[in-house]
Amino acid sequence: MPISLDHLNAAPAPEFVAALGEIFEHAPWVAEAVTSQRPFATVTALHAAMINAVRASPAETQIGFLRGHPDLAGKAARAGDIAEASKSEQAGLGLDRLSDADYDEMLRLNTAYTEKFGFPFIVCVRRKTRVAVIADFVRRIGNDRTAELNAALGEIGYITRLRLADAVTGPGMPDVAGHLSTHVLDSYHGQPAGDVAITLFEIGREGERTALKVTRTNDNGRTDEPLLHGGPLRAGQYELLFEIGDYFRTRGVKLPDQPFLDDVVLRFGIDAPEGRYHVPLVATPWSYSTYRGS
Amino acid sequence: MPISLDHLNAAPAPEFVAALGEIFEHAPWVAEAVTSQRPFATVTALHAAMINAVRASPAETQIGFLRGHPDLAGKAARAGDIAEASKSEQAGLGLDRLSDADYDEMLRLNTAYTEKFGFPFIVCVRRKTRVAVIADFVRRIGNDRTAELNAALGEIGYITRLRLADAVTGPGMPDVAGHLSTHVLDSYHGQPAGDVAITLFEIGREGERTALKVTRTNDNGRTDEPLLHGGPLRAGQYELLFEIGDYFRTRGVKLPDQPFLDDVVLRFGIDAPEGRYHVPLVATPWSYSTYRGS
Amino acid sequence: MPISLDHLNAAPAPEFVAALGEIFEHAPWVAEAVTSQRPFATVTALHAAMINAVRASPAETQIGFLRGHPDLAGKAARAGDIAEASKSEQAGLGLDRLSDADYDEMLRLNTAYTEKFGFPFIVCVRRKTRVAVIADFVRRIGNDRTAELNAALGEIGYITRLRLADAVTGPGMPDVAGHLSTHVLDSYHGQPAGDVAITLFEIGREGERTALKVTRTNDNGRTDEPLLHGGPLRAGQYELLFEIGDYFRTRGVKLPDQPFLDDVVLRFGIDAPEGRYHVPLVATPWSYSTYRGS
Amino acid sequence: MPISLDHLNAAPAPEFVAALGEIFEHAPWVAEAVTSQRPFATVTALHAAMINAVRASPAETQIGFLRGHPDLAGKAARAGDIAEASKSEQAGLGLDRLSDADYDEMLRLNTAYTEKFGFPFIVCVRRKTRVAVIADFVRRIGNDRTAELNAALGEIGYITRLRLADAVTGPGMPDVAGHLSTHVLDSYHGQPAGDVAITLFEIGREGERTALKVTRTNDNGRTDEPLLHGGPLRAGQYELLFEIGDYFRTRGVKLPDQPFLDDVVLRFGIDAPEGRYHVPLVATPWSYSTYRGS
Repeated sequence: MPISLDHLNAAPAPEFVAALGEIFEHAPWVAEAVTSQRPFATVTALHAAMINAVRASPAETQIGFLRGHPDLAGKAARAGDIAEASKSEQAGLGLDRLSDADYDEMLRLNTAYTEKFGFPFIVCVRRKTRVAVIADFVRRIGNDRTAELNAALGEIGYITRLRLADAVTGPGMPDVAGHLSTHVLDSYHGQPAGDVAITLFEIGREGERTALKVTRTNDNGRTDEPLLHGGPLRAGQYELLFEIGDYFRTRGVKLPDQPFLDDVVLRFGIDAPEGRYHVPLVATPWSYSTYRGS
Repeated sequence: MPISLDHLNAAPAPEFVAALGEIFEHAPWVAEAVTSQRPFATVTALHAAMINAVRASPAETQIGFLRGHPDLAGKAARAGDIAEASKSEQAGLGLDRLSDADYDEMLRLNTAYTEKFGFPFIVCVRRKTRVAVIADFVRRIGNDRTAELNAALGEIGYITRLRLADAVTGPGMPDVAGHLSTHVLDSYHGQPAGDVAITLFEIGREGERTALKVTRTNDNGRTDEPLLHGGPLRAGQYELLFEIGDYFRTRGVKLPDQPFLDDVVLRFGIDAPEGRYHVPLVATPWSYSTYRGS
Repeated sequence: MPISLDHLNAAPAPEFVAALGEIFEHAPWVAEAVTSQRPFATVTALHAAMINAVRASPAETQIGFLRGHPDLAGKAARAGDIAEASKSEQAGLGLDRLSDADYDEMLRLNTAYTEKFGFPFIVCVRRKTRVAVIADFVRRIGNDRTAELNAALGEIGYITRLRLADAVTGPGMPDVAGHLSTHVLDSYHGQPAGDVAITLFEIGREGERTALKVTRTNDNGRTDEPLLHGGPLRAGQYELLFEIGDYFRTRGVKLPDQPFLDDVVLRFGIDAPEGRYHVPLVATPWSYSTYRGS
Repeated sequence: MPISLDHLNAAPAPEFVAALGEIFEHAPWVAEAVTSQRPFATVTALHAAMINAVRASPAETQIGFLRGHPDLAGKAARAGDIAEASKSEQAGLGLDRLSDADYDEMLRLNTAYTEKFGFPFIVCVRRKTRVAVIADFVRRIGNDRTAELNAALGEIGYITRLRLADAVTGPGMPDVAGHLSTHVLDSYHGQPAGDVAITLFEIGREGERTALKVTRTNDNGRTDEPLLHGGPLRAGQYELLFEIGDYFRTRGVKLPDQPFLDDVVLRFGIDAPEGRYHVPLVATPWSYSTYRGS
């Protein structure tokens, strides 16, 4: 159950610390450091204060704090021996049930990273697909130490902002939700394309597809619910498949036995987890176009 | 080595029949029937005359002729016990090396078809992908006998036209070649997109892709050679993959870590094996369109 | 001031007739005929009842009623000698201040029409541009009498529905409003195009343009207000001009001295006055597309 | 009649100078200066040598040469008192028959320019529309003297290259011809749009249109001849009008009384007179797109 910001602003210091002590992994001192800055006008201001406390702390404190984080998909995660929030975050990406080969690769990456930087690889896993997490891992191992320390603290910012948004209610909530939507226009008849079957896939490392959503357009050519919403989008690669051949056949358009367009596939990337992505399809039986819309 | 139409027009009847006796499977009587109609002005006229001879023959002759054809992917094909032309035609589609499961399905279809119609399923396999051949098989089993007899003779027409085009040279060659091409336009810079990597895939029964061609665009945004040409196209479903993200990155356009467009996929069908299909891509890093061009 | 439907339902019969007597031109008998059918649940039901009263009346009554209408842009209109509603409706289209040449043409059309059908040409001028009204006039003179009587009563339906919507408030108001909107997408940067200058023109008989609206897009690439709304659209031909060259230059895109695209013009027609028309522009400095959207 | 390069290479010096003395306005010394450099392998090399002779001459010689040019649309042009080539070049743009107001404006520009730079405004009028010439005039008056001297010599290069291409034949002719073409695709039927009426307009200073070409597409959706070719294109603004409503109606597509698309207008600019411009239209009755093609 989230606690209200008002309550936290008025609560005795120990209660405040108890409530927010786990937002920063194994680091109740971050909550302690901002206790005296209360009251906070907004949840966003509270988060900013906590981040500033980390950034203002001595280098060895920061490193110690980073070291308190579990390895990504590491032994601790397999054994379930990590903070509750970390557990569910890693599980959301399937990092707690890797194949042995993937686990071995993670182990190699974790070892190489920790040897180079002296702290574990930290990434906000709720903002990326598994492929993107691994790509990031590989890329960041190439950083120099200063850049990487900064990158790690940046990810801490994303992680704790999401945890805070889950834990506290009140004015000025940080905007942590992205939005993916679509829209199908039928330019053969000059009207929205209703009742078009749509499947949204996430694209995996070897190009394999995992269906995230199966839906149909309504009379306005849109979906009743956004395709993805309610939290950050996972940066990564996706595919939308539109069964446009069936749509035209159902409306009496005579298509060849092998239709020129049958299942139309739009492959696209999401880069900004808190962004708005609108990916429309404008189609006839013989042509289509798409673009990043709004 | 093809023989010239002039030579065939002037040759003694037995030589003419010997040369063309196998164009119609195990049916030298078709060549015999048109011997006296020589000279033929064009190869197309020769083919039309032979087809007319079949269509004008008594029903039992036609059925007997159809019965002379091997089962598609049947025991005879596995054992190599069919006419040379049939052998290479079926092999072109991999029908001589089916998995046991696929072989069993073919057996079931062949049995069902032959029981219903009294002759084997005949299809011009050089004009279809394997998926399209099987789809056709399933569909045609639903025909009534008159429609199906007509369909079978139509396929005979396609088969023998191709065999004749291989065997004879001369004026008025039938047009048996289709054509698939593409063209990439870069609407970010307003110019043809050169050096774009392109892969053409055939789409299999379970959606699996088989690469048919890997190429790159030239300075005009076209490929030096058509993607497919020189013979009939195989009716079926295809995919073109354009590595457009790499193209824009190489030209210094700054793309996000997860580009909105990276590999663009156009999935399309070919219905007319002798048709011209032009499938262009007009793209920016944020939009693209395609259409059946010319 | 509109009167509420509740009030009209409860009012004494003479008050009801006084309030609605002029909805049908010089024909208070229509209101009288439906007095006893009160109460009406919706304004739409009231309108339907009044139309039914006209359609159910004897042929000579109907013709008499039609004859009570003024000539379009006729002497009476010039002299101001017509019902108030007719006056402002005709003035809205500039039919009260025609050039002499146009007035003469109208006179010829009115004479030809009245001679053929025995009643004046009636059209709901609030639903068409002047060009479309004249095109309709010319077309309808070619009708046979039955078709034309029906066409005239159909237009009476549109005219009185609009008058009723102005005069009465209450549940179930008829939907008399169309909607025209636009949206500019910048596919060079992958974002909505804000601050684009847009002019909407009506296209006249000789292709001349009359500016109806000058506006700019907001940060979402849309206009704060719809381009047209609040009443029926006028069926006719329009142009939208987008100053897209200026837009790209302002954002630092280097364009040639003579830009490939500078002012983009979309010419389109509106056919359904109560329809929703969305006419988006998806553009780069080198390409654009539009479609009837939703 | 053009003279062959071979002939000029072998001719006595006086004949060479006589033949090319007027290529550079009133400046036979340019031809004289390159006589001894013969033989020239290509016409392009001959032109380059002549330009180099001008660029290598002392400043006062260059200025004197520039002063030998007539005012653009000036008194001399009105009186016909200029070199034959200049006369037809200026006439091609209608600069010899300006309205009095336009003539007065030209006079003001010429006076202002000559006062500032000490030589008349020189522009290759065969490479620009009248609007573009005037825009250039206004823009170049803002240059500093060095930049403007360079601009004037650049225009001399264009003028003399065209004169040389007219006067001499031989290997290595300079490429002075641009190319404008179009192509209409019907994405409703998935085929080229044949027999579409097309008009090409030049856009004037007040937006007025001058029809340059009226044509129709052939079965391939292209025009038999390019829209413009055979010489430099005039940099400026143009419009292509496609009667696409008629096209679809003729093919039995039922359109509304006020078609959404009837005459489609593409307004575009040409910047590179020697460039290739392909401006295709991909259309349905409800959508269209265009792009700079190739």
